[in-house]
Amino acid sequence: MEKAVVLLSGGIDSSTVAAIARDYGYELYGMSFSYSQNHSVELESAKKIVGDIGFAEHRIIHLDLASFGGSSLTTSASIPKNGDHTMEIPSTYVPARNTIFLSYALAWAEVLRAYRIFIGVTAVDYSGYPDCRSDYISAYETMANLATREGVEGRKLKIEAPLITLSKAEIIRRGTELGVDYSLTHSCYDPTIEGLSCGFCDSCLHRKKGFEEAGVPDPTRYIS
Amino acid sequence: MEKAVVLLSGGIDSSTVAAIARDYGYELYGMSFSYSQNHSVELESAKKIVGDIGFAEHRIIHLDLASFGGSSLTTSASIPKNGDHTMEIPSTYVPARNTIFLSYALAWAEVLRAYRIFIGVTAVDYSGYPDCRSDYISAYETMANLATREGVEGRKLKIEAPLITLSKAEIIRRGTELGVDYSLTHSCYDPTIEGLSCGFCDSCLHRKKGFEEAGVPDPTRYIS
Repeated sequence: MEKAVVLLSGGIDSSTVAAIARDYGYELYGMSFSYSQNHSVELESAKKIVGDIGFAEHRIIHLDLASFGGSSLTTSASIPKNGDHTMEIPSTYVPARNTIFLSYALAWAEVLRAYRIFIGVTAVDYSGYPDCRSDYISAYETMANLATREGVEGRKLKIEAPLITLSKAEIIRRGTELGVDYSLTHSCYDPTIEGLSCGFCDSCLHRKKGFEEAGVPDPTRYIS
Repeated sequence: MEKAVVLLSGGIDSSTVAAIARDYGYELYGMSFSYSQNHSVELESAKKIVGDIGFAEHRIIHLDLASFGGSSLTTSASIPKNGDHTMEIPSTYVPARNTIFLSYALAWAEVLRAYRIFIGVTAVDYSGYPDCRSDYISAYETMANLATREGVEGRKLKIEAPLITLSKAEIIRRGTELGVDYSLTHSCYDPTIEGLSCGFCDSCLHRKKGFEEAGVPDPTRYIS
């Protein structure tokens, strides 16, 4: 069975990507990152998805991205609500986040001899993050194949971003076909301690709209 | 004063790179990584170099690369001595190491608004590591400029690898001109607890040969 490393945040996108990778027939090696207090709810969701979809292994890597500052997701800056942005790239953007995540995935893939890394970026219901675009993913793949023993000596590594051309609604429809239990997933940037979603941050707004457009009942527990 | 992030291992190459960046007129932000027990001696050297050359800030990032395995530098596998290799890429290669290091540097550079990252890779007295080649550095730079807010909206980031065409002897001569105190640096893959160098690992062999060819006295304390 071919191995694939899957970046798993515990949200809709990465959970759907995991189901797609399993559907392709890969043995799944999940990698999640703990990089701020805000995300403990997301990590619990990632663990539930791992149990539900079935992974060969799941690693949680602890990163200290907060010490760099630069994002409202890793500092005490307030999370924008109701689409209230003053910049093209929102404050929830974390500097070089996907680059750091993919680099850990690359290290693990090389050791596992996995030739696929799956990442749930999407350029449609695009969050304005530069590291979610197709050009970025292609450039990362080129770099990765120059960086590693395998890329030099043998088989090429591929970064799979199967959601890149899908809208949130299309992602939810695809995941629903594949049996993803979205009640296990989490999207909110600003959840309560009990894990309820705020309903008004960018991530909640995309999520609500996605379920609505997909015609799939939204299983999310919102505050109100 | 323009800022530059400098990847600093505490060895000859990165210490020379720091001196070059300072000579170019940059304000230096040093970044070192703690990724295995083996390297505590190197980190002590990095701190000494920071003090000697003068940095605005120095960060040590703790990484758990050992959990991935795959390298004799992060596992209990024996370090090759006297050039005894059975593979083209030696066992001391750490999967995706420079990619992970550069990715952290990229995050910090973005927050600092630094447009230069200095790295002491060299393709001449080439250690056989894929992530020390010029093609790799160029591909990383291309990817980095697609990954970040700055790369998209503003000024381009440059990865500076000023040693890439220099031999170890040329590096030592250049650093000596710039006043680098090489007695503070450390190269050995397999030092004693007291910090003495083994004298026979690849890194010691390159170091000895470098000083010899440069005609500069070797200040290293070897076991014998």
